[in-house]
Amino acid sequence: MSKKLQLLRNLMKNGSLTNGKIVNVYLLPRTDPHKSEYISDRYQRVKFISGFSGSNAMVLVTNSKALCWTDGRYFDQAIEEFEEGWELMKQAVPDSITPLEWIDLNIPSGSVIAFDSHLVSQETAITMKNKLEALKIELLPIEKNFVDEIWENRPEEEIKKIKLLGVEYAGEDVPSKIERLRDTIREKKCDSIILTLLDDIAWLFNIRGNDIEYNPVVFSYALITMDESYLFINKKKLPEGYEEHLKGVKIFDYEKISDILKEYHSKNKENISHKMWVPSTTNYGLSSLISEGNTYASLSPVQVLKAIKNETELNGMRQAHIRDSGAVIEFLIWLEEELKSGKTLSEKIAMNKLDSLRSTKDKFVSLSFDTISAVNEHAALPHYKMTEKSNLPLKFGDVYLVDSGGQYFDGTTDVTRTVIVGDNINNEFIDLFTQVLIGHIECAMAKFPEGIIGCRLDSFARHSLWDNGYDFGHGTGHSFGSFLNVHEGPGSISFRNPQENGQLKAGQMMTIEPGYYRTSHWGIRIENCYEIIKCNVNSGASNFLTFSPLTLVPIQKKLINKNMLSSKQVNWLNDYHSMVYDIMTSYFKRQCQEKEISWLKEACAPL
Amino acid sequence: MSKKLQLLRNLMKNGSLTNGKIVNVYLLPRTDPHKSEYISDRYQRVKFISGFSGSNAMVLVTNSKALCWTDGRYFDQAIEEFEEGWELMKQAVPDSITPLEWIDLNIPSGSVIAFDSHLVSQETAITMKNKLEALKIELLPIEKNFVDEIWENRPEEEIKKIKLLGVEYAGEDVPSKIERLRDTIREKKCDSIILTLLDDIAWLFNIRGNDIEYNPVVFSYALITMDESYLFINKKKLPEGYEEHLKGVKIFDYEKISDILKEYHSKNKENISHKMWVPSTTNYGLSSLISEGNTYASLSPVQVLKAIKNETELNGMRQAHIRDSGAVIEFLIWLEEELKSGKTLSEKIAMNKLDSLRSTKDKFVSLSFDTISAVNEHAALPHYKMTEKSNLPLKFGDVYLVDSGGQYFDGTTDVTRTVIVGDNINNEFIDLFTQVLIGHIECAMAKFPEGIIGCRLDSFARHSLWDNGYDFGHGTGHSFGSFLNVHEGPGSISFRNPQENGQLKAGQMMTIEPGYYRTSHWGIRIENCYEIIKCNVNSGASNFLTFSPLTLVPIQKKLINKNMLSSKQVNWLNDYHSMVYDIMTSYFKRQCQEKEISWLKEACAPL
Repeated sequence: MSKKLQLLRNLMKNGSLTNGKIVNVYLLPRTDPHKSEYISDRYQRVKFISGFSGSNAMVLVTNSKALCWTDGRYFDQAIEEFEEGWELMKQAVPDSITPLEWIDLNIPSGSVIAFDSHLVSQETAITMKNKLEALKIELLPIEKNFVDEIWENRPEEEIKKIKLLGVEYAGEDVPSKIERLRDTIREKKCDSIILTLLDDIAWLFNIRGNDIEYNPVVFSYALITMDESYLFINKKKLPEGYEEHLKGVKIFDYEKISDILKEYHSKNKENISHKMWVPSTTNYGLSSLISEGNTYASLSPVQVLKAIKNETELNGMRQAHIRDSGAVIEFLIWLEEELKSGKTLSEKIAMNKLDSLRSTKDKFVSLSFDTISAVNEHAALPHYKMTEKSNLPLKFGDVYLVDSGGQYFDGTTDVTRTVIVGDNINNEFIDLFTQVLIGHIECAMAKFPEGIIGCRLDSFARHSLWDNGYDFGHGTGHSFGSFLNVHEGPGSISFRNPQENGQLKAGQMMTIEPGYYRTSHWGIRIENCYEIIKCNVNSGASNFLTFSPLTLVPIQKKLINKNMLSSKQVNWLNDYHSMVYDIMTSYFKRQCQEKEISWLKEACAPL
Repeated sequence: MSKKLQLLRNLMKNGSLTNGKIVNVYLLPRTDPHKSEYISDRYQRVKFISGFSGSNAMVLVTNSKALCWTDGRYFDQAIEEFEEGWELMKQAVPDSITPLEWIDLNIPSGSVIAFDSHLVSQETAITMKNKLEALKIELLPIEKNFVDEIWENRPEEEIKKIKLLGVEYAGEDVPSKIERLRDTIREKKCDSIILTLLDDIAWLFNIRGNDIEYNPVVFSYALITMDESYLFINKKKLPEGYEEHLKGVKIFDYEKISDILKEYHSKNKENISHKMWVPSTTNYGLSSLISEGNTYASLSPVQVLKAIKNETELNGMRQAHIRDSGAVIEFLIWLEEELKSGKTLSEKIAMNKLDSLRSTKDKFVSLSFDTISAVNEHAALPHYKMTEKSNLPLKFGDVYLVDSGGQYFDGTTDVTRTVIVGDNINNEFIDLFTQVLIGHIECAMAKFPEGIIGCRLDSFARHSLWDNGYDFGHGTGHSFGSFLNVHEGPGSISFRNPQENGQLKAGQMMTIEPGYYRTSHWGIRIENCYEIIKCNVNSGASNFLTFSPLTLVPIQKKLINKNMLSSKQVNWLNDYHSMVYDIMTSYFKRQCQEKEISWLKEACAPL
């Protein structure tokens, strides 16, 4: 058993954080108080206590067990990274059980289960509480985190200045956004809302931060009432000129949220119509400050507002994708030249090259996630992350999958291409590549009624693979922000549980990224970003939508078996390539890049 | 205000059924204690109190309001049928609100909401309770039903003998089914289960009843423990020979369920490992007898067991469909002859003809639902029910949609054809018919991995319609029983919320029935029954499934525009018709029916 685990168990037994109460089970989800997907170092508690660094984890510690739940992406990695005494619990495999089911089977009545009240959402806490009450087990929310108590040298929060986003990028000023939010709140007969999702707050106040890698957000909370708006943030992060940008917004320290919230609520709770929108993602530590009778719990309405991009954002997004596609095209040309000349590269060399090409582009801020640079068998791992140890050579004839994206002042990008620089490509690979491409095209050219949930498009991306007895294990696509998180809710195209309010509407962003993965050999993924637009249909109906490409990077034609495509599919591809050619050659012309233009001529020629 | 409504409000105010407590809101869902979709006359309380006879209704009565929620199928009908004082609440339209939301907005804290505890499932009651507690509103379950108190001449239960289904039809005897059920229960660490769904009980005990029209079930409850099995049923319904058929089963009166359940539970509740599976569909009156800590609440496992048909059932189902298709083919020939000869028929004449042809078939028991016999604009109503008043003439050139099915000792059927006996069919109709057909074929020839939820196939049936800007408002398909309910869970193909345990497996039944409805003009639906079977795929994977047709009725070729079909789609149709021809001509040969054979030759010729 690791020393850290022993210290944690001592804390559970000595009751020093729980008024003397002995804790039998300690629960620790891998997240931060804002339910962030990407988290900063100081919130990497699961990694600190268990060694496991994956992005999905739920930890449960008893006096004799230390369990960590995660999903199939991370089974091998978890086993490798675990410190002594840890056990893997597999999610979403046949016969797998959830932490609650494990508790039901293993923890006797009368036990106490503790958790950090800031790491569990209201929704989850209430579900657990109801379930555990029936089992006569006490669920104990705790203000302090047990791991922090034993974490010497826990990283301090760094103070990084935020950026103020002008209307020339945001397309709408803060007062107008706040008014639109108030309209949504009024519709639900609420008089106020608390915001804890960092991208909600960044969007609402037109601010962008540097507190979490790849996600331009800043640690903050917000409270919006009908008359006032409060922003809770470390004031040292505010740059010059913030007073004008945030005129009328009351600014308090990040830590003040609980006090102000309590004060506001106690002032209003005698008012019979006082009702606060407490989004279901709000952490229990905050949501429990509001009486249940004064609470309206539902998805944050900012998620829905933010998903539909305005004209300025749409235009910025298109421009950002042109520059970003430019970087990817330059990279593909470089790759081809290097490999054809007989050089051996590596995953790392290729990654660095692409990252540096991207970073030279106008309005570039950062990558939007760790570039996935994967050769052969590594391409079979959809979430592969290169390390010094895993770094494979990249040679002529290898399968190379590269999934990457950037944050720009005017947009966020995400693109995957799978390429082979080589001859004599085997037919099975070409068959599978073509099937994945057909899935991509079928999804991309689908027309569908406004307002359907994205999951209803997911099977279009699998139809051709299924026909041949293949499938892929991840969703087909996700929404993304406008110079914000590359994964954004509530819309997506996935067979998993449909999200509340995940209706597709014009102006939303979506990736389409089907794949196929041959374990231990190679993998294929073809990903573009799209905007959702209105389209014409034979019926004359005005409520039909389709996808319009944002990403403008050719798809390697020699990997395609044209005979497998219908003429409609061939037309889609040729139209796409012709669009890529038109827009990207005029971009490269402006940059006086002749080589790229002649490469595009060949790469974009009709199939 | 109607007299009945006044009486109901008096009851709510005088507290005679609630120990003097005044009831501010009375809730009444349209169902019976078994959560049945089809209900017998004595449970038609919503129709009695409001006048509305639709199959989906939720009633809410206050001192000043009488509200009835239903869905789009019934908006017009409800308005027409309501007695004085009733108001329609629309479900599933933009801005529609649920009864709970209505309560939240209109009912003050401190109010009392009463409901018949036998008409609300455990799941729903608990959700409501949690929500209303927060609003400080009391939810009061009541043993007696308020409507029954004022319903003079409420229909008595009729005593009709049940049928005992031998192994030659059921394919598995009762002890074996009970043992398999016990295995499922043990897997969830339960020691017993209560069954309240009537088709669960009919399946488990191999009995078929006549208590509900079209559904061969009998009012009953069951309790299965590890050592005993109890059946609660009116003993007068048991036929000769039941002792042998139900050997070892303890039989009690239907009304005894509460007493025996309480007795069993109180005997066992001190046992720490005592846990009873109380399916989430169980009515609250029964589920609340079991302490929550001893309860495992989930979908009834019998629903899952019953959905996969055994070899005997599969074979019976195929045979029943041959005979049933025979009746439909005879009907289509008759229809063609009558209309071509210049006769004017009517919806009613056609319906009676089809019903009588079906009833002559071997092993016929009853229809499986009210035949939908719909001409022109009536075909645009997916759930049209003909009445004396609505009965339209049926002439040469009319669009005619007929959706019908039968209960046979060896299977249950459900088939829809849309036909036109006429010349000069307009091109738009042919276009739409072809698009619906393409949807049907794309869904029917889909290959898909075992275990996916059926909703993932739903969009295949809409792809072609969507491409042209059309859609239909109902699900694509449903499961059905083996000489049991024509709508059976948990599997279905629908865009609506996926059902718990609705995974598709080999041996399950499914309809495929896309449509298109041109309001006030005409409608199209093409429905077949299928069995789900394993299939070969190029990858060699062994876990892929597809659909194999059970229904064997030609699809009218002159309504199809062949140019719109891909060659794969044409091949599917030709293969289907050639299968229809082979099987049905040999059926008709055995019956010495020459006319049908020559009609089939033309109807099944390749496109």
